[in-house]
Amino acid sequence: MSEKRPARQPHSGHHNLDPHLPRYAARTAGMTASEIRALFAVASRPEVVSLAGGMPNLAALPLESLSSQMAELIAKDGLTALQYGSAHGVPALREQICEVMALEEISAHPDDVVVTVGSQMGLDMVTRLFCDPGDVVIAEGPSYVGALGSFAAYQAEVVHVAMDDQGLVPEGLREALAQCRTHGKRVKFLYTIPNFHNPAGVTLAVERRAEILEICREHDVLVVEDNPYGLLGFDGQTYPALRSMDPDNVVYLGSFSKTFASGLRVGWVLAPHAVREKLVLAAESATLCPPTLNQLVVSRYLATHDWKGQIKTFGENYRERRDAILSALEQHMPPGCSWTHPDGGFYVWVTVPEGVDTKAMLPRAVTARVAYASGTGFYADGFGSRQMRLSYCYPTPERIREGVRRLAAVLESEMDLMRTFGSVNPRAVSGPENPSPDTA
Amino acid sequence: MSEKRPARQPHSGHHNLDPHLPRYAARTAGMTASEIRALFAVASRPEVVSLAGGMPNLAALPLESLSSQMAELIAKDGLTALQYGSAHGVPALREQICEVMALEEISAHPDDVVVTVGSQMGLDMVTRLFCDPGDVVIAEGPSYVGALGSFAAYQAEVVHVAMDDQGLVPEGLREALAQCRTHGKRVKFLYTIPNFHNPAGVTLAVERRAEILEICREHDVLVVEDNPYGLLGFDGQTYPALRSMDPDNVVYLGSFSKTFASGLRVGWVLAPHAVREKLVLAAESATLCPPTLNQLVVSRYLATHDWKGQIKTFGENYRERRDAILSALEQHMPPGCSWTHPDGGFYVWVTVPEGVDTKAMLPRAVTARVAYASGTGFYADGFGSRQMRLSYCYPTPERIREGVRRLAAVLESEMDLMRTFGSVNPRAVSGPENPSPDTA
Repeated sequence: MSEKRPARQPHSGHHNLDPHLPRYAARTAGMTASEIRALFAVASRPEVVSLAGGMPNLAALPLESLSSQMAELIAKDGLTALQYGSAHGVPALREQICEVMALEEISAHPDDVVVTVGSQMGLDMVTRLFCDPGDVVIAEGPSYVGALGSFAAYQAEVVHVAMDDQGLVPEGLREALAQCRTHGKRVKFLYTIPNFHNPAGVTLAVERRAEILEICREHDVLVVEDNPYGLLGFDGQTYPALRSMDPDNVVYLGSFSKTFASGLRVGWVLAPHAVREKLVLAAESATLCPPTLNQLVVSRYLATHDWKGQIKTFGENYRERRDAILSALEQHMPPGCSWTHPDGGFYVWVTVPEGVDTKAMLPRAVTARVAYASGTGFYADGFGSRQMRLSYCYPTPERIREGVRRLAAVLESEMDLMRTFGSVNPRAVSGPENPSPDTA
Repeated sequence: MSEKRPARQPHSGHHNLDPHLPRYAARTAGMTASEIRALFAVASRPEVVSLAGGMPNLAALPLESLSSQMAELIAKDGLTALQYGSAHGVPALREQICEVMALEEISAHPDDVVVTVGSQMGLDMVTRLFCDPGDVVIAEGPSYVGALGSFAAYQAEVVHVAMDDQGLVPEGLREALAQCRTHGKRVKFLYTIPNFHNPAGVTLAVERRAEILEICREHDVLVVEDNPYGLLGFDGQTYPALRSMDPDNVVYLGSFSKTFASGLRVGWVLAPHAVREKLVLAAESATLCPPTLNQLVVSRYLATHDWKGQIKTFGENYRERRDAILSALEQHMPPGCSWTHPDGGFYVWVTVPEGVDTKAMLPRAVTARVAYASGTGFYADGFGSRQMRLSYCYPTPERIREGVRRLAAVLESEMDLMRTFGSVNPRAVSGPENPSPDTA
């Protein structure tokens, strides 16, 4: 046993050392992979029921008619569809977007709409315009993981405000703003998802909306309203957009990813006039222009297809899945768990008993062939270890029920261990009770 | 005449005042509209010959076959094409991109390719990864206007290095780096367009390439190689990419905008492994993922179409237009003007006699029904007032000749005025003789 091992070579120049490390910008340190990513290869195997992703269920799309529409578009209008456009976006589409927004009581001028590469780009551009390093963004706790990623990329600090089953708590917002003021922090905007929240699955009560807006006005804080799910209420219900109630102090983000097709990456920003002009400049430096083809595809679809009927069909599919997940949770989850009851959108937010750490449990869940998004990814501050997001949007109702059965079994055995040995994860930090994060 | 006018209301809350002004990030001050933008409405009238834009000429695209390909893609593979993908990009396309790059002697692994929304997004992401405010980017003078926009958005300082007809001058690069070191400035990368430069129309001599790379290594400076035009040499000639000569210290940007279709917005970054991982994270926070549809369209096109033959056809069209513009310049331009002689790409860079200010002359040119991009837009430091970029890519050869005739007449009358009254633009700053900027 005295074989000589080769001495370890420090700085051997292998690829696991990054020679570019000293060159990165300070912001790059904040770019970290989402927790689910590491497990992605395993979690995407067909035998695993994934309740982790947020992929819309596109099975109901009329592919045949889309196929011939697309063919006609290229044959007739190909030289436009395949050519550069403006950073502002295709004018006809911007007009149609105003009609879409009218469903949520927004009255807007097409000039104030900027088309973006998904609403993620809108979010990134708004953050680019407003946030210097150290500036504060107020966000619900939990909040959309992609938003946290953008805020981190611009070195903004996120301060979370709690929600209850009526959405963002106005008193919590007031306190957070007062605290920031006390500590001399500069708050740039409130980032909020009022409808069918990702990941929390709750909706901001209509009675609270004016109050939230009023608080932001008082504190001279802009509101960024992110509304990808607003038209996906399971009873066809919609709510007045924050933008409709305070056009001058709200930047609104919209998307066709959930109401039509995510792979086209067509979203938009509706902004007060002066902000919109700057937004176009920012967008131009980011991508020159959004893809013309995709904008014309969406425009044609809105013009020729019963898009409202299609959204209704999507909603029915999601309602069926929501029903499946809620009844399965009711039936299988061990005592001590609680969850939200979404009436639209894609997500249920689950809180597990004290002592269980959803992040630590995730590899065991994936081994048991079920995946979810653990709660900490939806907080910028380490909370959420007792929470998880379950997405019911994509799998069939049957698979959803099977997934919840598996998840409940994993949770049971986790709790068994706890009862025997005390906390399985002694260093676990528990998050606030209700509700908490979502991830992609 | 003693009527009382209403007193002017300061802060009247009208839309020309921006109530959000105190809220913007510091970087937003650097976002300004390009000079051509203000004239765009007029310059895009059909009677104006625009030598200003950089729109590729797509007339030779096989629209019918693209139309049926697109139809088949949606019919057969629509649920994938219309769904989210990864921020890294579609694997099959990344493999094909490696084949495209092999034409310029690049040997790369598909894992190290990241698909972006046009190479503009690649540029923006690379700047995001590397540049803190105040960091220096070295760029050719003139340089691509969209790159200057991205650098400004990240508050990077641009230091220009002169070119001659063999491209970037190594001695100039050495001096600029030494100067930056002397002044304690942190140089993050050299941004260079080695082939058929936008706007200068010159190509970096092959003999200089190793030297440029060596200088950057010596000074521990990364190289960002932007190569949208490399396959558009008019004699089918290609040059070894900088990336092929120093894989570990070059980040390479590629694009299908000029070799296939700009309106799809499909570009890519090839980066050293460690950088690529960070790039994917940055891209995810910027747009979640590039449009799946567009990636599959490009992938199918590369797999089923004679794309090399198509590039050859494009090149022939551009050569015909290059010939038209060079002979028209020769024939019509007044003495004292000089210009570059591109053997690929889209642009001629023209220097006019001392005393003429191309920016001040532009409105007069547009009135005379010809548009160009004035030189100052291609410099971060105010140079370029004696230069202009002429794009020959889009108009017909006949229109190009007519445009140059009009331009020459405007220039003649400008010089007549000068001879009569002295400089028309007494405060004009002249840029370096040769060559200078380009704009969109």
